[in-house]
Amino acid sequence: MRYGVLGTGEVGRTLASELVKLGYEVRMGSRDAANPAAVEWAEAAGPAASHGTFAEAAAFGEAVISAVGGRVALAALESTGEGTLDGKVLIDVSNPIAFEDGRLRLSPVESDSVGEQIQRAFPRARVVKTFNTVNCAVMVNPAKVPGAHQVFLSGDDEDAKERTTALLGEFGWPADRVIDLGGIESARAVEMIVPLWFTLFQKFGHGEFNFEVRRAAH
Amino acid sequence: MRYGVLGTGEVGRTLASELVKLGYEVRMGSRDAANPAAVEWAEAAGPAASHGTFAEAAAFGEAVISAVGGRVALAALESTGEGTLDGKVLIDVSNPIAFEDGRLRLSPVESDSVGEQIQRAFPRARVVKTFNTVNCAVMVNPAKVPGAHQVFLSGDDEDAKERTTALLGEFGWPADRVIDLGGIESARAVEMIVPLWFTLFQKFGHGEFNFEVRRAAH
Repeated sequence: MRYGVLGTGEVGRTLASELVKLGYEVRMGSRDAANPAAVEWAEAAGPAASHGTFAEAAAFGEAVISAVGGRVALAALESTGEGTLDGKVLIDVSNPIAFEDGRLRLSPVESDSVGEQIQRAFPRARVVKTFNTVNCAVMVNPAKVPGAHQVFLSGDDEDAKERTTALLGEFGWPADRVIDLGGIESARAVEMIVPLWFTLFQKFGHGEFNFEVRRAAH
Repeated sequence: MRYGVLGTGEVGRTLASELVKLGYEVRMGSRDAANPAAVEWAEAAGPAASHGTFAEAAAFGEAVISAVGGRVALAALESTGEGTLDGKVLIDVSNPIAFEDGRLRLSPVESDSVGEQIQRAFPRARVVKTFNTVNCAVMVNPAKVPGAHQVFLSGDDEDAKERTTALLGEFGWPADRVIDLGGIESARAVEMIVPLWFTLFQKFGHGEFNFEVRRAAH
């Protein structure tokens, strides 16, 4: 199984390294094929790791993880070219944030989400939104945080969600800690968590926390 | 200690009944002093309970709880008249939701919140946002949900937040399960939780759940 990971930031590098560790071949994609972070990552990560443009990484992957910033995700995916993503599981872990005057801002918000934008732009890709509510250190090592805290899943394609759930299991998230919220429209709900996540991040001084949904047995 | 509780819906009635049970005098306020739900509540709740207009309830309370819908909270509070809320702790538990074509919509959102709107409109009131992330049955009986799940607190006035924390303690929320998020601007972050809360409510088929923030010990 081959993965394309788009994005050379901390999230992309962390996920790509974990995939290599799990035995997958991984190509990291960036706008510039000679991106220094991608070159450095591929050299350090060994023979299963390679790097290239967004298009090369997306073409390489049987499944693709979009780990670029939410506000540039569409542009990155569009640069992969006509048909490259067709039929593939496309995991979106992004949040459409920016900082303005020191404040975290979110756009789109409430009436739309990056997850939906991507699914609309690539109707033949099988988009799954997940992982955007946790720090990347927690994504690949949930035991960093105590408790049976969870991650969420949104997407219109059931098979794509099952495959993503299996991958999350390899990352350390058992299926009973993956909460399927329904279709890709529910990406709105999880993207809107980010302001609370960021407020708590500032309060705690680190990102090693997560939410555990507790509920009465009915 | 006397409380004014604005709103005759399930949230207002639940909070008002709990306050009476705790030994407080409570006046429930509504737009129409003869509101049948308020009359019925006051008759059933005993001699410490009374009802009246929003203005009468706000004047009666040494502290006031706004439990009307978030989209009508400002109008309800404005009807209490000049100066009525000055200096008082004003606890806002609302969410600015409406349903359009079966979808939950939130407004204001992201760049503003009901909590902030109220504080701006009543600069001499001491506004505290809390409880908007839990079902009213859980507000007054957190043990309905297992675990050390929490509620959040936002507000600019430290003394008002301390008094609110003490009241939450009487409701069954120990201080270590009350997360102070900072100033009233952080009301944006907690109001934005509502779409996820509602998605989970639909999935579980009931509202007896809550979030427990779990974090690594650093």
